[in-house]
Amino acid sequence: MEHLESNSETVAAIRDSFSKQGLMMTIGAKLHLVASGEVRLRIEASESLTQHHGFLHAGIIGTILDSSCGWAAQTLMPLGTEVLTVEYKLNLLRPAAGQHFEGRGTVVRAGSTLTAAEAAFYTTDDPDRLIATMTATLIGVRPRSSD
Amino acid sequence: MEHLESNSETVAAIRDSFSKQGLMMTIGAKLHLVASGEVRLRIEASESLTQHHGFLHAGIIGTILDSSCGWAAQTLMPLGTEVLTVEYKLNLLRPAAGQHFEGRGTVVRAGSTLTAAEAAFYTTDDPDRLIATMTATLIGVRPRSSD
Amino acid sequence: MEHLESNSETVAAIRDSFSKQGLMMTIGAKLHLVASGEVRLRIEASESLTQHHGFLHAGIIGTILDSSCGWAAQTLMPLGTEVLTVEYKLNLLRPAAGQHFEGRGTVVRAGSTLTAAEAAFYTTDDPDRLIATMTATLIGVRPRSSD
Amino acid sequence: MEHLESNSETVAAIRDSFSKQGLMMTIGAKLHLVASGEVRLRIEASESLTQHHGFLHAGIIGTILDSSCGWAAQTLMPLGTEVLTVEYKLNLLRPAAGQHFEGRGTVVRAGSTLTAAEAAFYTTDDPDRLIATMTATLIGVRPRSSD
Repeated sequence: MEHLESNSETVAAIRDSFSKQGLMMTIGAKLHLVASGEVRLRIEASESLTQHHGFLHAGIIGTILDSSCGWAAQTLMPLGTEVLTVEYKLNLLRPAAGQHFEGRGTVVRAGSTLTAAEAAFYTTDDPDRLIATMTATLIGVRPRSSD
Repeated sequence: MEHLESNSETVAAIRDSFSKQGLMMTIGAKLHLVASGEVRLRIEASESLTQHHGFLHAGIIGTILDSSCGWAAQTLMPLGTEVLTVEYKLNLLRPAAGQHFEGRGTVVRAGSTLTAAEAAFYTTDDPDRLIATMTATLIGVRPRSSD
Repeated sequence: MEHLESNSETVAAIRDSFSKQGLMMTIGAKLHLVASGEVRLRIEASESLTQHHGFLHAGIIGTILDSSCGWAAQTLMPLGTEVLTVEYKLNLLRPAAGQHFEGRGTVVRAGSTLTAAEAAFYTTDDPDRLIATMTATLIGVRPRSSD
Repeated sequence: MEHLESNSETVAAIRDSFSKQGLMMTIGAKLHLVASGEVRLRIEASESLTQHHGFLHAGIIGTILDSSCGWAAQTLMPLGTEVLTVEYKLNLLRPAAGQHFEGRGTVVRAGSTLTAAEAAFYTTDDPDRLIATMTATLIGVRPRSSD
């Protein structure tokens, strides 16, 4: 990650969560930024991730944005809270043409139980282009052993 | 596929589209059923597809359901039409625990330009359990070379 | 209401909630059915509820379906629980042409905190036509005074 | 309206569309701003618009935001284009407590057929508070008589 602006325990917890997601390694995603209420992930185009026209598959866009929303939510929750996605909606604005992509998740409102987040998916090739947007609802769950 | 109930040219076009999606091979998805207005895909749990608790990642659920909606829409479009997803929303009802999963996409309304579809994601382990639901909007695009 | 298939205390609580919604009277909505996990509302076309082409406004469709989801969720919650909508998504399939309309909300999954519901909006003019679909997430909140 | 920053024919067309929506008069909505790619509507709290806790009904929030998205989309379409909502999703972040409210719709991407828009609903009471967010897809339809 290039930037780490959140407190170190939260960053460590998110790094740990990231490392446990087998899918992140499968698709080659990188944790790029963890800040208070914001997480950015990066991914590269690959033949292993295409839809039928050769562009990045919308499912990968959903994966990256859902994950960026989830970890963005986690940055504002008490340490040890598990984050689950309740729902998300993805609007696909353009085909995901390009080589380099970034998903940026930010918290819109952090409640005591639920967090609302939004995310945007860009190609970072020159020039930047907005490819998709997401809104998501996340729920924080305290591990049962801590009750 | 176990069942093929649609006309053979449409099935062939969807098989071809499926074979061009690099992501389908990467995640090990199978085209299970192509019928008029309905497509089912199957996938198996794998360490390469997990989220941080070891369950199937929501992004994979989104990928399977988005794809099942897209091909379900294609079954009702003129041959040669390209299908793009405009938007989808995923509601995650339970963790995707289990080994065997199926996504079932069905067309709700096929318009001249836009198609509305819905999909459900189940574990087919005994007993069946509904894990997630999707609603999606798809657009059919005629290839420019045919104009 | 023509049909009352849920227990009488729940029905009374939903009737009470309905009567407190000033908007239901403003738009002339009727509580048509309260059953376990299902609520139906009815509404008539009116010049006071139109969009710019003279059809029923999508906002009214959203109002009817959101309310039917909320009360459907309430039928499966402990008495005294307050229901709030977390989010909903509305897919508009056709213009809301017609005179008589019905919104049908049903619970898809009732969890301890969150409930997922779906709803469909029909004209009940002959023949029935599906006009819109909704998926929604509801949260049950226990009144603070009962803690 | 306090501000009119779009061209006068587009503003006139949107005013005309607004005046044809019976629902806008029923709920007392005001067209507050029409600019290129942005429309704002205002509404006041009223007993005729409440949900069961006395707050502004989510259906009214949806109505205001859907309409602000639709007219925002129209500002970027050719004169004479009819705008229809394909779908919208509403995330409700807080109860709509307050007296004065504003919905702000903005275009995210204007395509040749489809427009993606987003909107936010605020109370403009001091201090401003964000109450809800929407993402929407709109379609522009050329009147048949002009073909």
